[in-house]
Parts: sequence; structure tokens; C-alpha cells
Amino acid sequence: MPTLYHSPNSRSSRVIAQLMLMKKLDAVEIVTVDVPRHDGAGRRDPRNPHPEGKVPYLVTDEGQGIRESAAIMMYLDELFGQPFSPQIGTPDRGRYLSWMAYSGGVLEPVLVAAFSGLDHAAFKSTFRSMEEVCTALETALEGGCFLLGDALCVADILLASPFQWAPHLMPDSPAIKAWVKRVDERLDGDAIAAFEAKAMKELSALEDA
Amino acid sequence: MPTLYHSPNSRSSRVIAQLMLMKKLDAVEIVTVDVPRHDGAGRRDPRNPHPEGKVPYLVTDEGQGIRESAAIMMYLDELFGQPFSPQIGTPDRGRYLSWMAYSGGVLEPVLVAAFSGLDHAAFKSTFRSMEEVCTALETALEGGCFLLGDALCVADILLASPFQWAPHLMPDSPAIKAWVKRVDERLDGDAIAAFEAKAMKELSALEDA
Repeated sequence: MPTLYHSPNSRSSRVIAQLMLMKKLDAVEIVTVDVPRHDGAGRRDPRNPHPEGKVPYLVTDEGQGIRESAAIMMYLDELFGQPFSPQIGTPDRGRYLSWMAYSGGVLEPVLVAAFSGLDHAAFKSTFRSMEEVCTALETALEGGCFLLGDALCVADILLASPFQWAPHLMPDSPAIKAWVKRVDERLDGDAIAAFEAKAMKELSALEDA
Repeated sequence: MPTLYHSPNSRSSRVIAQLMLMKKLDAVEIVTVDVPRHDGAGRRDPRNPHPEGKVPYLVTDEGQGIRESAAIMMYLDELFGQPFSPQIGTPDRGRYLSWMAYSGGVLEPVLVAAFSGLDHAAFKSTFRSMEEVCTALETALEGGCFLLGDALCVADILLASPFQWAPHLMPDSPAIKAWVKRVDERLDGDAIAAFEAKAMKELSALEDA
């Protein structure tokens, strides 16, 4: 059984949401770990084998470590028969790969710049800004309810997640807001909240020990 | 036939190297376009359909646009039968996905920060620095000649490329230098240089017209 290193209310929460959607939460061992938070809380957890102490981190049955949310979510989707991604050779495959790479390669740096007030010429010319991100998402959503059309895929869970967890970063775009809401409605928000509350309690108990 | 929008000596050059290695350069239509360069040369090319005028950009037979080097390289490898990547379900698949996501999600932001002198706390805590990148690459290379072991894969071409094109960014690490040299030796440097010289001439002719 693969092991997922998870910290509640963090970048690994979207992997929990994905596992729940696939009904595969019991097919992966979840280890709750601490991580340093932006507000100074938390700390690097020695039980987390990620080389830099981050989450999510997945260790496969072969003992191989997988880092980066996009890679972990693609891997888990593939492991369970690709219920939420286009198979190789099908028409939407290229757009799927494009959105998965866009998440870490563009959306993430742009969001980090936005929430930290970073304003730098080389950074902007490489990654652009929220304006271009909005245009990219809005253009895609003209074609259907989700990024690839009418079916939800892993890319929707990955790319909508920052706006679910940090609503102040949500662009003022009716199309993007409606898409995030549709993704939300497909995920089991109550079950995720209950899981995260339990994980948070577990973490506090460990710290008190 | 898919169309690749390419600019000589740019981020799309690694896609040319990959196509040459697969002997599939004639199976993709290459359109040479201009891009703005860091030194102020070049300009956004109206013939390039990338929404932000960047390269590489691939348009599939279905007319879908694929952006981000990692996505384009994965797609092309899949299109031609996965000659340079582990198939879904094979043991190295997870590590392959991890390196492909790491390229845009970590290596690229860290290199942009390095060459532009960007030094920012939120940026560093998110993406880390060249030190962690070196450790990650060196740890992987302990296991073999290439990132996944003894066989070259698409991730090697993608992740070695910044060091091939900007040797001043090459870390002072014998293991990483030897790996970049091994990747170089597997690619046809003379053929790539000849292709790029021809593309550069084509571009100048277009600009003079």
C-alpha cells in the first residue's frame, strides 16, 4: 500500500479530496505530519521523509518517493485505473497534461507572488500574472463546465484547490467562481472537513506528547 | 501532423532535441517564431498562437493547444509510443512523473531567481534554492547514469537543458556535471546546432522582409 504524508489544511489536502472522490482513501496509508506554516506555526516533522519536509509526499509500493502535487495526483489516478484523467492516445490527453504542468509551472508561482506581494520583472516575464491566469482559465471554461469540457478531471481538483483554501486569492471572475463552486460540489466537503479535523487533533496530540 | 511553434536557442530547443532523438522531426511541423529575449532582442510574434506568445507551444491534430515544456514533451513521447518514458503501471512511473513536475514546479522558479538575483522569503520557502536542487539531482544520480537509472528518459532531456544552454547556472557538482555531459552525448549536438542556425537565418529573413 502506498503511503501519503499529509498535513491538514495544506497542499496535501487536495490529494485527500481526490482519494475520497475515487473512494480509495482506504487503499493508501495516510501519515499525518506537521509542516512549517506561513504564519510561523508548525515545524518540519522528522517523520516526514520528503527531502525538504514538505507535503504532499507519496512513497510507492516499490519504496520510491514522489514529490509535487501534480505528479502524486497523476500517479494515484493512474494507479486506480485513471477514473479522472484521459487515457494516452485519447483526444483530451494533451490538454490534460498541459493543465497539470501549468499548475506547478505557472499558477503556483503566480499565487506565491500574489500573496507575498512579490513584484519582480524577470519573475513576471517568465510566469506572467493573475491576469493571464484568469484569461487562461476563462478561455478553457468557455468549452464546458470543467477544464476539459463536461467531465471533471484531476486537473480541476488540482487547479481549483488554491481558490478553495484561500478565497481571498479568488479572481473576480464569474466564470472562475462558478467553476470552483462546481468542483466544490463534486467533492465531499463535509467528509473532507471531518477528516481534516481528526488529522488536526492527531497532530496536536503528537505535539503534546 | 502536430505543429510545434519553436524559437531557436530558447526553451523550445529541448523539444527539437527530443524529436531528433526519437527520429521524429519530420513527423511534426515546425514553425519558427520570434520571442522577446531577456537581453531586449526579439519580439512577440503574431504568428505564434500561444496565448502569451511563448515557446514551446504545440497544436495537436485535434487543434488543441498544449503549453509548458513538460506537457509537450510527455505528449510527444506518448504520441510516438513512449520510447523515452516508463509506461503506466511500471515501477519507475512515479519517479518519472515526479521529475517532470519538478522541472516546472521547482527547477524553473529556482533558476529564474538565480539568474535574476531574486531573493525573497516566501519564494525561497516555497521553491527552495539551488542547494536543494543540487541535493535532489545528486541523490537521484547515485542510482545510475540518468535520473531513473541506466536508461535516458524525457526527464533527463528536460532537466539537463537549462545547464546545457546556460552553463554559468551549472552547479559546482561533479555528479551533476557528469550527468549533463552524458545527456549531451546522447543528443546529436551537431544536428541540433545546424537546425538552430537554419532556424535563426529563417527568422532574420522574416524580420528583414
